[in-house]
Amino acid sequence: MTDYRRLRVALLGAGAVGSQVAALLLRHGDELADRAGATLELAGIAVRDLDAPRDADLPKELFTTDAETLILGSDIVIELMGGIEPARTYILQAINSGADVVTANKALLATYGSEIFDAADQVGASVYYEAAAAGAIPIIRPLRDSLAGDRVQRIMGIVNGTTNYILDRMDTEGAEFLDVLADAQALGYAEADPTADVEGFDAAQKAAILASLAFHTTVPLETVHREGITKIDKGMMDAARHAGYVIKLLAVCERLADGGAESISVRVYPALVNRDHPLASVHGANNAVFVQAEAAGNLMFYGAGAGGVQTASAVLGDVVSAARRHIAGGVGVGESTRANLPIVPVGHVVTRYQVTLEVADEPGVLATVAGILSEGNVSIATVEQTVTGEDATTARLVIGTHRAREQDLSDTVERLAASDVVVRVVSMLRVEGD
Amino acid sequence: MTDYRRLRVALLGAGAVGSQVAALLLRHGDELADRAGATLELAGIAVRDLDAPRDADLPKELFTTDAETLILGSDIVIELMGGIEPARTYILQAINSGADVVTANKALLATYGSEIFDAADQVGASVYYEAAAAGAIPIIRPLRDSLAGDRVQRIMGIVNGTTNYILDRMDTEGAEFLDVLADAQALGYAEADPTADVEGFDAAQKAAILASLAFHTTVPLETVHREGITKIDKGMMDAARHAGYVIKLLAVCERLADGGAESISVRVYPALVNRDHPLASVHGANNAVFVQAEAAGNLMFYGAGAGGVQTASAVLGDVVSAARRHIAGGVGVGESTRANLPIVPVGHVVTRYQVTLEVADEPGVLATVAGILSEGNVSIATVEQTVTGEDATTARLVIGTHRAREQDLSDTVERLAASDVVVRVVSMLRVEGD
Repeated sequence: MTDYRRLRVALLGAGAVGSQVAALLLRHGDELADRAGATLELAGIAVRDLDAPRDADLPKELFTTDAETLILGSDIVIELMGGIEPARTYILQAINSGADVVTANKALLATYGSEIFDAADQVGASVYYEAAAAGAIPIIRPLRDSLAGDRVQRIMGIVNGTTNYILDRMDTEGAEFLDVLADAQALGYAEADPTADVEGFDAAQKAAILASLAFHTTVPLETVHREGITKIDKGMMDAARHAGYVIKLLAVCERLADGGAESISVRVYPALVNRDHPLASVHGANNAVFVQAEAAGNLMFYGAGAGGVQTASAVLGDVVSAARRHIAGGVGVGESTRANLPIVPVGHVVTRYQVTLEVADEPGVLATVAGILSEGNVSIATVEQTVTGEDATTARLVIGTHRAREQDLSDTVERLAASDVVVRVVSMLRVEGD
Repeated sequence: MTDYRRLRVALLGAGAVGSQVAALLLRHGDELADRAGATLELAGIAVRDLDAPRDADLPKELFTTDAETLILGSDIVIELMGGIEPARTYILQAINSGADVVTANKALLATYGSEIFDAADQVGASVYYEAAAAGAIPIIRPLRDSLAGDRVQRIMGIVNGTTNYILDRMDTEGAEFLDVLADAQALGYAEADPTADVEGFDAAQKAAILASLAFHTTVPLETVHREGITKIDKGMMDAARHAGYVIKLLAVCERLADGGAESISVRVYPALVNRDHPLASVHGANNAVFVQAEAAGNLMFYGAGAGGVQTASAVLGDVVSAARRHIAGGVGVGESTRANLPIVPVGHVVTRYQVTLEVADEPGVLATVAGILSEGNVSIATVEQTVTGEDATTARLVIGTHRAREQDLSDTVERLAASDVVVRVVSMLRVEGD
């Protein structure tokens, strides 16, 4: 066997992903050494509780509660603890002690990414985070490197497996949200507290990371417009299907050109996607990222979005990259955020909409509704009316709009809601990917 | 504007891709500088004929016929001439003069890749070739870097746009091969001499490159089993559709485990793909690479496989990477071929098959055919018989097999062909992706 330089690897965290990373590092050590050009020695695994149960059978002597000492003696630090602290402090310590960092911590990167990348830049270290954006799907390197010579126009990503699993089952089985959620929790696809997934927080973090990379711009998490899927019900699913759409929770990162000056919009919401679109056939807990670039055209990256062993694959790829860089020498290549495009609020976004109204079933209603839309600068593309109430006193009006400004649309929907002829606004969904 | 270090970029070749690369370099120079951390100065464009017509309007003073002088003064050399010589000599000169190299030359890499990578390793230079494997689809970095910590089990790629365009139209329109080919030539999707595409040579080069990366093994082009699509006719397409399949020209790179010792198989042939498989819905001239890895599971990368501007995107991404490395310092990370797994001939491959026979329509024929298959260690999964001849003296027998060794199957098909009851072997297709 080749006599390689030995690199000490510290692992912080031994949860579902961490355990798999440790197991794979130990099992495939020789193979990884050949690829990295360095022997990757797992120096230790820092955990909070030495006696907690682990997913994989790992040597007891590797575990320690002293993360700081472990970090100080390491060349590569893998942070898989999750959460903000102490992960942030440990990563900064690792960088300042000369280590390269591998992390899957999307919450941390979406919040403190700039601080961490700046710290790495200062000392010439690298931060790798392939697992932070779409699980096992290689999307970071394609965006950061392969498309670095192109101009990304739009990203539409299904980046949260739990919500895609729920929406997919609602679509294919005609089930209700809460029933599928309960099932997903029982099967381990959803957490006991599903808020981070179903309210779109997880997707918003990933959207911020993807947009930062795609547009070379620092995207603070609070600039990401976020809506979850808890309001999606069977009726909306049925209506979407009837109209040739499927509802997907999308992370949309878009470059806007408003009369020359460029800006970007980053938003997460359930949207109507045409059944012919490649994203429509992403089923179950899978993820996919659809990228439109000026020169490259349409690209799609598809795969498992989560899961311990799948995410471990992305983490280990980063570890090999970090090792190769350590051996090759030179400083790490920092994040490129020099474009720093302005980020516009969701009100500036222009898309098509589908608005469903419950209205009084009487003459002149359509004229009134059409009048309100027209006053609000929202142009109607399609209208479908169905009688709904058992006593046939109300009807349902499904209005497809032409492209309109979100602000115009939401102002108009407010006026519709206040109108005498409208009983209630059933739903307002954007149409993406046309 | 930031005062960046200036890097001199030489472009060799100004065809469809080269012209676009030059135009984009000139148009987006400031933006690329911000991303690369260096000003990319297009120092010159080497061509054979200064007066040849170009796709883009480029400054005349950039053109030169003196490639060698241009190369010697450059930091990054982009080779887009195609062919073996003088591309090979120029690339070696560039490496030895300290430049990094970007190339889209699949023929060269599939043939002289080892020589070029070794030369780069010697001096610590880098060779980038994202555009050589699947046009604009980022697949090199995912395989080389993102999946470097995983074990790729199988790649199934639609890596030739021309043949996918032809097969897709044959499938959707029920057209014949030669008619669609003529149309594809008229539309510019196929060359006047379509051999490289329709006989699978182009796909075989890409298969060699993908397999080298995925299995960390040098894969000589002559070890790639290759069959084209010229024998695919309407009858085979109809039969495939009837059985729930679509015929795609696939590049299959597979890791085999024969009792512990690992080996790989690399092959290009038209295969039956289940309509439910993600590869089945890759239409037109698009490409897609489906990757199965031990930890990451199933991944798919989809996009435009060719086209001047699409390929230019991949080339420019490489140029930015090369510039970043130049600025960061350190030696280039070489190719990892340390696994060097043995490459087995196609006879060792195990898949399922669909064999279509024209047989005499008389009692006992099925028994005879079944007997020959059984003697050959080929187990039958499905049989369908249809009367075909106008005078009803022959019938068509479509036999689906269980997984069998290719050598056993082809020996058996030979014996079937020689049998009295078999009029002719209509087709023999592998089933991939089950």
